[in-house]
Amino acid sequence: MLDNASHRFDVATRVTPGDSRWQGHTSEDYWAFVGPFGGCTAATMLRAIMNHPQRAGDPTAVTVNYCAPVAQGSFDLDVRLVKANRSSQHWCVEMTQGDGEVSTLATAVFAERRPSWSHQQAAYPGATAFEETLPFVLPIAAPWIKQYDFRFVEGEPKRGGTAASVETFTKQWISDRVPRKLDALSLVAMSDAFFARIFHAKRELVPFGTVSLTTYLHAGAADLEAEDTTRVLGVADARTFHRSYGDQHGELWSQNGRLLATTTQITYFKA
Amino acid sequence: MLDNASHRFDVATRVTPGDSRWQGHTSEDYWAFVGPFGGCTAATMLRAIMNHPQRAGDPTAVTVNYCAPVAQGSFDLDVRLVKANRSSQHWCVEMTQGDGEVSTLATAVFAERRPSWSHQQAAYPGATAFEETLPFVLPIAAPWIKQYDFRFVEGEPKRGGTAASVETFTKQWISDRVPRKLDALSLVAMSDAFFARIFHAKRELVPFGTVSLTTYLHAGAADLEAEDTTRVLGVADARTFHRSYGDQHGELWSQNGRLLATTTQITYFKA
Repeated sequence: MLDNASHRFDVATRVTPGDSRWQGHTSEDYWAFVGPFGGCTAATMLRAIMNHPQRAGDPTAVTVNYCAPVAQGSFDLDVRLVKANRSSQHWCVEMTQGDGEVSTLATAVFAERRPSWSHQQAAYPGATAFEETLPFVLPIAAPWIKQYDFRFVEGEPKRGGTAASVETFTKQWISDRVPRKLDALSLVAMSDAFFARIFHAKRELVPFGTVSLTTYLHAGAADLEAEDTTRVLGVADARTFHRSYGDQHGELWSQNGRLLATTTQITYFKA
Repeated sequence: MLDNASHRFDVATRVTPGDSRWQGHTSEDYWAFVGPFGGCTAATMLRAIMNHPQRAGDPTAVTVNYCAPVAQGSFDLDVRLVKANRSSQHWCVEMTQGDGEVSTLATAVFAERRPSWSHQQAAYPGATAFEETLPFVLPIAAPWIKQYDFRFVEGEPKRGGTAASVETFTKQWISDRVPRKLDALSLVAMSDAFFARIFHAKRELVPFGTVSLTTYLHAGAADLEAEDTTRVLGVADARTFHRSYGDQHGELWSQNGRLLATTTQITYFKA
């Protein structure tokens, strides 16, 4: 396991601080089809807040709106603390390139979370152990996919043919290919690392893009430190595909059965 | 049924256009405990975009971050088209009051949705008919609650006592008290009209606030027109309560079995 500072993921999501305007650069390692892997973009924007001198608390809610493809090269991040309360902060980050066009717009809620009544209502989905689950090998793969070790427990992607019914549910282990201690940044990235539900539903690759992603983190830095893990068990499903847009919702679990994050996204597709 | 223009909901969510700065005023009819009902605030911000001369398409994703309680009285809305593409738009709306402090921050994706492969993966939850389900009468009620007709099919709120297990699931009809033809605005408001999951879990009222709400609309204006309804069947549940924050996820269905919207929120609580 690499030290987090020198891991490819950390290099890819590196940001250089400015006063309110930060800089970053897209990564070839996490390139997708027409732009960077959305999870990498989300983590980069979140990192700018994490590193901001005014930041207090842990990221609790992150929404990323993908406004336009991010072009290869450098970008600016306008990082703004919209409102600070006693124990929470509301942030807004805009990613711009070249002529100042906004490619990505993110909002985030940070919170200093206090002890409370605690109860996990959702049940751990359960799975064969990571070590006993076969890594998924993609016939074709965008660079970002090679940065992850996906191991499907249920719903491995199928190509061609027909199923008795449309299948969109998946249960899979997700780990950085080179193991990296899980933190809020990689957790947010992994929340966008499920394959498009439309690929599962149609059993083929079709033009697709995440339009908006929302991830809630239910584990703070101390909780993640205590979990001390490099992977999550992810489950994801879709509820509907209609007039070129579909949804996805998912959960990211530690192998100890702790719900680390819940996520949802709305996606564009052409099919 | 009142004409939508003169319905209390429309009066409560009225906005006066400006160039980029719009104005509105809180409503006593939709007042909650320490501020307006969050669904009313969400609908008001969405209405400012809907009425904007540059708006194109239907609202598809809306995220509202509740940064601070909205004080009784007037407020400004800074409405900004962040990015326009061929068939989609990304908007950002900030609500400010008095000294310019931001109380609410919203982002929205609008889209001109084209015909595509269509499939509803989620199953209609089913319910006793609205007319055959008893209206829920609250022992104490904030004004906003009186604007709705809630009819619980499952998970009616209970006070005191103990259950064999923590119960957080509810299935309920939600209608405007004075029936009003369902549109994107009322759908977004209803997506925040489930009672706090922590109330269900703890069987008591505790200090609570929605921190961030995300709603995806799976039905456009034409779809909603075709449904021609005044109510939804809503289901909601929670996945976790931990260190003062809990989540909620829900679905809003037409009685014809069409999934109109999916929603999720992260909430603060004290318990």
